[in-house]
Amino acid sequence: MERVYIIKISGNIIDDEQRLYAFLKQFAALEGKKILVHGGGKLATKMAEQLAIPQQMVDGRRITDADTLKIVTMVYAGYINKNIVAKLHSYGTTAIGLTGADGNAILAHKRKHAVIDYGYVGDIDAVNAPLLQQLLEQKMAIVVAPITHNGEGQLLNTNADTIAQEIAKAISGFYQTILVYSFEKKGVLLDVNDDASVIATMNKEKYELLKAEGKIFAGMIPKLDNAFAAIDAGVGKVSIGLAEELPLLINTTSGTTIEK
Amino acid sequence: MERVYIIKISGNIIDDEQRLYAFLKQFAALEGKKILVHGGGKLATKMAEQLAIPQQMVDGRRITDADTLKIVTMVYAGYINKNIVAKLHSYGTTAIGLTGADGNAILAHKRKHAVIDYGYVGDIDAVNAPLLQQLLEQKMAIVVAPITHNGEGQLLNTNADTIAQEIAKAISGFYQTILVYSFEKKGVLLDVNDDASVIATMNKEKYELLKAEGKIFAGMIPKLDNAFAAIDAGVGKVSIGLAEELPLLINTTSGTTIEK
Repeated sequence: MERVYIIKISGNIIDDEQRLYAFLKQFAALEGKKILVHGGGKLATKMAEQLAIPQQMVDGRRITDADTLKIVTMVYAGYINKNIVAKLHSYGTTAIGLTGADGNAILAHKRKHAVIDYGYVGDIDAVNAPLLQQLLEQKMAIVVAPITHNGEGQLLNTNADTIAQEIAKAISGFYQTILVYSFEKKGVLLDVNDDASVIATMNKEKYELLKAEGKIFAGMIPKLDNAFAAIDAGVGKVSIGLAEELPLLINTTSGTTIEK
Repeated sequence: MERVYIIKISGNIIDDEQRLYAFLKQFAALEGKKILVHGGGKLATKMAEQLAIPQQMVDGRRITDADTLKIVTMVYAGYINKNIVAKLHSYGTTAIGLTGADGNAILAHKRKHAVIDYGYVGDIDAVNAPLLQQLLEQKMAIVVAPITHNGEGQLLNTNADTIAQEIAKAISGFYQTILVYSFEKKGVLLDVNDDASVIATMNKEKYELLKAEGKIFAGMIPKLDNAFAAIDAGVGKVSIGLAEELPLLINTTSGTTIEK
């Protein structure tokens, strides 16, 4: 089976133009089929402040009200997605930007939660693998913004780590998939203040043990849960690490490699 | 040859949610292959005001500085484009939204002008007809935002009437093309204050005559120039008229029909 890279790039890198461009150059240089899933960064928060739209946080998670959805749609699907697409062309990669609404790429439903109303936040129901396959076969890199839709006209704000996981799983039947979560750290760290404390490999047993000992930084838990869900569902390789080390992450010679 | 509809919808309709949805329902109901090109509307101007970004106008045309480009990219390619795409799905049409950067759909260059620096405004060099054809063959309606790119990483603000014209011309070799400019008027009017004064058919001779007599409303001239450029270059039918009368415009039983 042919190989497809699914690379998630975090908001922290997107916020730093120089780091983003350096990363995009590396992404463009990857041979073969590839999908880039991008997060949001701080621009949406800044924009909400400038427009005096109050941001409501519950348990460290942003509530997406109608005004906030409008802003994240503008910033993620408009500004960030199209600038990445344009930049990739300048580095020699033909790219096409998608939200989940485009071609019904990712269908989701508004999150149901017993206590908290997260607002217009989407939980994924289905990835349109044939569409992604058709675009990949036309030699286009796909750039996915973290916005989905419910098929009934409603856009939904959706976690980019989860989108990357779901896409990787959905196309694992057609391709050998390599999923990389790239961000501003060298990998999963034993000590969040020590960049040298990268855990080179991680299986579920180790993960549960470290979690029980309180040694996994809280912010890493959703990412790791996504990583294990992917590897469990047949994704070929999953690694987590520094955006600047993309080629090494792909070869699993840097960062944290997730094992079954 | 199979038929393709290329429909331009103006910003005035986009600004009015009820009219927009009524129009989208009619667009969704059109059988066969179709492309929707949308303008911007007043949301970008409103957003610029809220963010205190001064808007510079020269000869009634907006100058697109870097901050304005950021806003139009967010509003046109993000908010408007993705909401139209999501809405079309709810009306039973699978749609995919594109800017000119996506899949290198529309390549442009920054406008060169002896006197005025229009800023990041694009004049079109090439439409990627094979890409549009591939998407149309996959039974997707294509929704185009008025943003293009120069292939070197720069997005450009581009007139939607011209985009519609260039797309119609580019695919006229493969399809029987029907180009409709739909907006808030019943057609080209002899008297801009009299909605009943629609000119039913217009050829170049008549156009030049009416223009010389000062009977063509200034705002209509770029639209008419685009319409004549399209019909001259082999586009099958071109008509101009009321968004709510889309099926009649397609049959050229309402609005203004452009003749060679």
